[in-house]
Amino acid sequence: MSGYAYGVHSEVGVLRKVLVCSPGLAHMRLTPRNKDDLLFDDVMWVDNAKRDHFDFASKMRDRGVDVVEMHQMLAETVAMPEARKWILDHQINANEVGLDVMDDVRAYLDSLPPQELANALIGGLSVLEVPDEFAGPVLKAARTAPDKFGYLLPPLPNMLYTRDTTCWIYQGVTLNPLYWPARHEETILTTAIYRFHPDFTSADFPVWYGDPTVDHGNATLEGGDVLVPGNGVVLVGMSERSSRTAILQMASSLFANGAAEKVIVASMPKLRSAMHLDTVFTFADRDVATYFPSIVDQITPITLRPSDKKPGFEVTVEKKHFNDVVAEALGLKKLRMVPAGGDHYAAERSQWDSGNNLVAISPGVVLAYDRNVTTNTALRKEGIEVVTIVGAELGRGRGGGHCMTCPLIRDPISF
Amino acid sequence: MSGYAYGVHSEVGVLRKVLVCSPGLAHMRLTPRNKDDLLFDDVMWVDNAKRDHFDFASKMRDRGVDVVEMHQMLAETVAMPEARKWILDHQINANEVGLDVMDDVRAYLDSLPPQELANALIGGLSVLEVPDEFAGPVLKAARTAPDKFGYLLPPLPNMLYTRDTTCWIYQGVTLNPLYWPARHEETILTTAIYRFHPDFTSADFPVWYGDPTVDHGNATLEGGDVLVPGNGVVLVGMSERSSRTAILQMASSLFANGAAEKVIVASMPKLRSAMHLDTVFTFADRDVATYFPSIVDQITPITLRPSDKKPGFEVTVEKKHFNDVVAEALGLKKLRMVPAGGDHYAAERSQWDSGNNLVAISPGVVLAYDRNVTTNTALRKEGIEVVTIVGAELGRGRGGGHCMTCPLIRDPISF
Amino acid sequence: MSGYAYGVHSEVGVLRKVLVCSPGLAHMRLTPRNKDDLLFDDVMWVDNAKRDHFDFASKMRDRGVDVVEMHQMLAETVAMPEARKWILDHQINANEVGLDVMDDVRAYLDSLPPQELANALIGGLSVLEVPDEFAGPVLKAARTAPDKFGYLLPPLPNMLYTRDTTCWIYQGVTLNPLYWPARHEETILTTAIYRFHPDFTSADFPVWYGDPTVDHGNATLEGGDVLVPGNGVVLVGMSERSSRTAILQMASSLFANGAAEKVIVASMPKLRSAMHLDTVFTFADRDVATYFPSIVDQITPITLRPSDKKPGFEVTVEKKHFNDVVAEALGLKKLRMVPAGGDHYAAERSQWDSGNNLVAISPGVVLAYDRNVTTNTALRKEGIEVVTIVGAELGRGRGGGHCMTCPLIRDPISF
Amino acid sequence: MSGYAYGVHSEVGVLRKVLVCSPGLAHMRLTPRNKDDLLFDDVMWVDNAKRDHFDFASKMRDRGVDVVEMHQMLAETVAMPEARKWILDHQINANEVGLDVMDDVRAYLDSLPPQELANALIGGLSVLEVPDEFAGPVLKAARTAPDKFGYLLPPLPNMLYTRDTTCWIYQGVTLNPLYWPARHEETILTTAIYRFHPDFTSADFPVWYGDPTVDHGNATLEGGDVLVPGNGVVLVGMSERSSRTAILQMASSLFANGAAEKVIVASMPKLRSAMHLDTVFTFADRDVATYFPSIVDQITPITLRPSDKKPGFEVTVEKKHFNDVVAEALGLKKLRMVPAGGDHYAAERSQWDSGNNLVAISPGVVLAYDRNVTTNTALRKEGIEVVTIVGAELGRGRGGGHCMTCPLIRDPISF
Repeated sequence: MSGYAYGVHSEVGVLRKVLVCSPGLAHMRLTPRNKDDLLFDDVMWVDNAKRDHFDFASKMRDRGVDVVEMHQMLAETVAMPEARKWILDHQINANEVGLDVMDDVRAYLDSLPPQELANALIGGLSVLEVPDEFAGPVLKAARTAPDKFGYLLPPLPNMLYTRDTTCWIYQGVTLNPLYWPARHEETILTTAIYRFHPDFTSADFPVWYGDPTVDHGNATLEGGDVLVPGNGVVLVGMSERSSRTAILQMASSLFANGAAEKVIVASMPKLRSAMHLDTVFTFADRDVATYFPSIVDQITPITLRPSDKKPGFEVTVEKKHFNDVVAEALGLKKLRMVPAGGDHYAAERSQWDSGNNLVAISPGVVLAYDRNVTTNTALRKEGIEVVTIVGAELGRGRGGGHCMTCPLIRDPISF
Repeated sequence: MSGYAYGVHSEVGVLRKVLVCSPGLAHMRLTPRNKDDLLFDDVMWVDNAKRDHFDFASKMRDRGVDVVEMHQMLAETVAMPEARKWILDHQINANEVGLDVMDDVRAYLDSLPPQELANALIGGLSVLEVPDEFAGPVLKAARTAPDKFGYLLPPLPNMLYTRDTTCWIYQGVTLNPLYWPARHEETILTTAIYRFHPDFTSADFPVWYGDPTVDHGNATLEGGDVLVPGNGVVLVGMSERSSRTAILQMASSLFANGAAEKVIVASMPKLRSAMHLDTVFTFADRDVATYFPSIVDQITPITLRPSDKKPGFEVTVEKKHFNDVVAEALGLKKLRMVPAGGDHYAAERSQWDSGNNLVAISPGVVLAYDRNVTTNTALRKEGIEVVTIVGAELGRGRGGGHCMTCPLIRDPISF
Repeated sequence: MSGYAYGVHSEVGVLRKVLVCSPGLAHMRLTPRNKDDLLFDDVMWVDNAKRDHFDFASKMRDRGVDVVEMHQMLAETVAMPEARKWILDHQINANEVGLDVMDDVRAYLDSLPPQELANALIGGLSVLEVPDEFAGPVLKAARTAPDKFGYLLPPLPNMLYTRDTTCWIYQGVTLNPLYWPARHEETILTTAIYRFHPDFTSADFPVWYGDPTVDHGNATLEGGDVLVPGNGVVLVGMSERSSRTAILQMASSLFANGAAEKVIVASMPKLRSAMHLDTVFTFADRDVATYFPSIVDQITPITLRPSDKKPGFEVTVEKKHFNDVVAEALGLKKLRMVPAGGDHYAAERSQWDSGNNLVAISPGVVLAYDRNVTTNTALRKEGIEVVTIVGAELGRGRGGGHCMTCPLIRDPISF
Repeated sequence: MSGYAYGVHSEVGVLRKVLVCSPGLAHMRLTPRNKDDLLFDDVMWVDNAKRDHFDFASKMRDRGVDVVEMHQMLAETVAMPEARKWILDHQINANEVGLDVMDDVRAYLDSLPPQELANALIGGLSVLEVPDEFAGPVLKAARTAPDKFGYLLPPLPNMLYTRDTTCWIYQGVTLNPLYWPARHEETILTTAIYRFHPDFTSADFPVWYGDPTVDHGNATLEGGDVLVPGNGVVLVGMSERSSRTAILQMASSLFANGAAEKVIVASMPKLRSAMHLDTVFTFADRDVATYFPSIVDQITPITLRPSDKKPGFEVTVEKKHFNDVVAEALGLKKLRMVPAGGDHYAAERSQWDSGNNLVAISPGVVLAYDRNVTTNTALRKEGIEVVTIVGAELGRGRGGGHCMTCPLIRDPISF
């Protein structure tokens, strides 16, 4: 860790360490039939997706970022017996796998070397994959049934978007209850890494909110909704994916721990195309952000501030435009806003293709998909250095650079 | 035409002349909001789609094919006043454009030079595009309404798939009533080219079926369902898109004119993923075809043969597998069938990505998308030369080389 | 011509019409053995080069430029009998083709339809290509000789760089005697187009200098050395390729005709890597240019001004840096200069990869190769919109967007 | 090592483990000025080269090959103090670095963490890179000299071609004295890995020939000249790069140790374009090879066999064609030979672009550059599965899949 403590103190300060997840087995299993359940709009050419994701990671590494990869981190985690046990205890249960085959699957997974186990945990385990010597009568029967192409462990293609399962907010982290059942397992895996991987066990950081081993009911939170611009401010989208109930719990905890001074809730329309706040609004520099006006203009900003009275915060519904509320909270005279580029049609296309979903690696230097030419041009005209990455395959799950990164260590910036 | 008469006498004989349509303005107008209505699964990066389509056309040209392009042919067509009038008479009417603005639009379109008019006819005309001097009060009002981003003439992005609007079957052609309203205008445009463009006016060929100026009710036919393997045989998918009623009319006409000896109807499940017969079954060589077993195994083949009795044909529901019925009709001992490649999941992905939608430019030489690596490898192992084209953008409307080509002149082959 | 007269009045004003030349047959004939003679550093993957060149032209067309293509223009030219005769009279002679086979070749070429003749004139004619019925005894013998893979007409791969053969300077043009024998034929072809093609015969423009039908001895001039920034100024590189003798003749003519007020000669080191002035210095905007300091810092600027005395101009060897001399001539306080990007090594690489060889299509909007990331980033930081094109193949002959374009009509800009 | 012993028993048997080297810092330092010295024909776009090389490695990994990477292996090696000392003792000497700055450089390198030291050893160390605190007066002076952009340690861009420095021949290895001074350091690095890296220290294997710590005079050997087809046969190109003197020493050793029964020397013309035997001849399957006729037809095959008499082998100059001599040695009735594809010009281009430089990963499955379309098509028509990789950047040093791989473990095949 080279002397840096875990923690994310801004959206655009120097990025020191980041967690990504390469495309792989889970994406080989996306089909026209299951893609909607797995939240993808299209199938992916995995060979090219892997190549493009490598290039993405490589462009961050070449600019000094320590990029760690999920399969690798998970393999190093499950190499430790107690970590392996913890994961399997939570992943292999009667609800998910089925009482009858639970023991077979557990025994098989426990027999795998770490790298292969990591691949199965992320990539899924199909009915046909368990070898004969591990398969009892029910599992053997299942192989001849019409659903023989089904899964005992689900593929987790959305793991590609490491942003969502956890959020580093200043010096601590949340362990998020995700919205869609198809993604619930993801938080278990990331949590296991934070809990058992040597990179983290020697570190000391608080968990602000969430515990993947307990039921959160309808409270849901996803990292794509959480932006940490600095200055004690946190922005949270109240969206399709993040619920009021979870947001308030998180805010309370941040305030109680003195971790934040202001949480600005962005109350958004609930839409697939704008599932998270970061699909319509991200920062490119200290005072530059990109946004998709059609949605952001509809946001009602609600400010939460710590309070001594119950429930520990006070609530203000803002009258101003979201962009202005954010600028003010950061102490900026003005936030230079770059809208999704082009005419009405082009802007809609650009937002859909993750044109507003930037990740900064230092102030004014961002990674963005090549295909959003007009938005990228507009950003450049504001002085932003846009490093392009190929989006033809990676973008098919509706996520760009912001979604594909979970910053672990990022410097503060001053306002 | 270098001495060749219009007509398509096989699926894999030497391709002499073909009609394609470049991506362009119509695809710039695909947005997340309208893409489903316009039958696309995703928006397209048009710059790259144009480049990839040029490469597709270029690879055909370099192998001796005379490739003509829709925008170009249409521009040359509307350069002739009577052709221009015929098209506008049929495209600009009260139902499509609205009584109130019909005259404004007509006047504006009539003022355009040929290339620009062709672009508008294929690319669509938005409410905001008509210049002030042509806009009457209703149209002016429309520009301030919430639907101001709507269209007076619809964009026709599916024109990219020139296969569908008309089918050359042996020495004649059909002018097809398409299934989706979003595509009705397309047949008008292709028909206008056949009717007025000098390349065609000097030629002599019968129309077997269809007339875009009259209402066909529920009878629909699309070229993607029609394969002309030769030997007097025609294959027709009875699918989501092509109705029993249209197929029987076409067959009657072919028989009455002595143009075909056998029409094999492939009764298919009605599915978006397998919308046309050519999305699950195409030829690669005289005796080699590729297919998607999950669907083709479900096909019920029904043979129609000419008959002296009413209604002019006799019907046989076949007991054999579709592939065998086709082989037998062609007088082949065996059709070497190449299934969509890879395991269960891969095959489904490959079919979805147009892996079975090949276009041959001579016996054993086909064009196919690069992304279907396993299917292409399987074809190569059968001796087929697979020329790859980039499918990342072009494939987003679910069509490959077969869909993107309307062969105008193709040689027969012998069986 | 839409009301615009031929003439190039600036380097960055709105580009109205431009001549390019697609890669093709001539590049299929580049081999490791002949590439040095044909002035290429490497062989090219022609399929991809064609695709990338189409994209280049397409990006200009989409921004409103009328792009005309050399093979097409030449085909339309040789469709006219007198143009065909003029070209063949000048191309087919005893020195080039050999007395003995001259008649055979002429007869064969004369038999070709226009498009094929254009292809042969640009792509070359190999000994083996002349059909038997045209080949006399000497030619037949040549086919069995060890040099049977040689050429009767040379391939002209450098035609890709349409910049060089002629230069439009304000309202007139020069017809350049090129430096390398391998390129001499090129000027004949461009001249024929200007002389016979209907796009030009109806126009009226002076020829300032050059005549490809006469011998210019050692006087050579190439368009890559000539920049026309406007304000009555012309910049000319005195380089490996353009000689003092030719430059003075051109300047005299410009002065005598009142076409220019100042010619700034850039006396350059003679190097393959910096063969033309435009390989080390081009404009991106009214007051922005990119340059390669290692070479440009070595330039001695020499100003020529009209004079009443013999020889019609006066000469001033300038003491200031070339960049400052240019700025002053344009009446600019300062020319914002963007050096080739990166460290010492990167800058050398970038210049080599045509990083300084930009073509503007309007003030501040340029086309540049994708691979010169650091130079492109530096340009963007100066506010330039850099539209990227793929350089992997096209750049192998050491030319970028400036080399690949011959502007025919470009607007003036004001200083 | 999963139970497999180091050793390469064929050219096309299942590849188990292979050493590659990613493009990186060394290639960032290729410039137009130094590229010829560093044996490259052109500079490389390193970002894309890295991406394409990752895809190359990834395609091998996805097919079960254990791919190890040079920078990584070297970093793990120099993490061990004695390995670090051994390398620096051999790399940092008065001849290479200069007596005066030797100690400065040594001290600086010794201060680096393993990964950075590995990068410097492969990527080179420029005069400007040594920090002030390590630079003595001579080195400080050098920074202001005109050659300040020179190197204290040379960049080793040819390390990309891991094939050359060592050759695994059946159960042992050679440590090759390379031909060009620019590459001498490479063998030191690979030798250090074999000598100190834990993957190898636990293994037991003989060194047949070579020792990078001693002077081999004019005797030179490069791995690109050595093919190990199996059946006790070794093929060696006597080329520009591999000398008679080295070949005979290697053969003697193989015979003396009973490691080979026959060494077939291919006496080749000495040419840059055909620098190694594997640039004109490689295997694709048990009985299929590709070759470049213009060169291979000129090869004089010379067979060496063990002998009891001095000097330990007998020599036969063969009368037959090289291909036939190889087939016979392997006990094959016929070797199906696939020539470089296309016409005379195309074949020359294809060989140049490494079209004949295949690497097999199992019998009949090879990796090849995408650009050699005609050669790849010809291979496919012989039943070979050609997995394509992008060659636009990687191929600029004139090496393909065979050059870029050093197989460490490969299964035998039976003939």
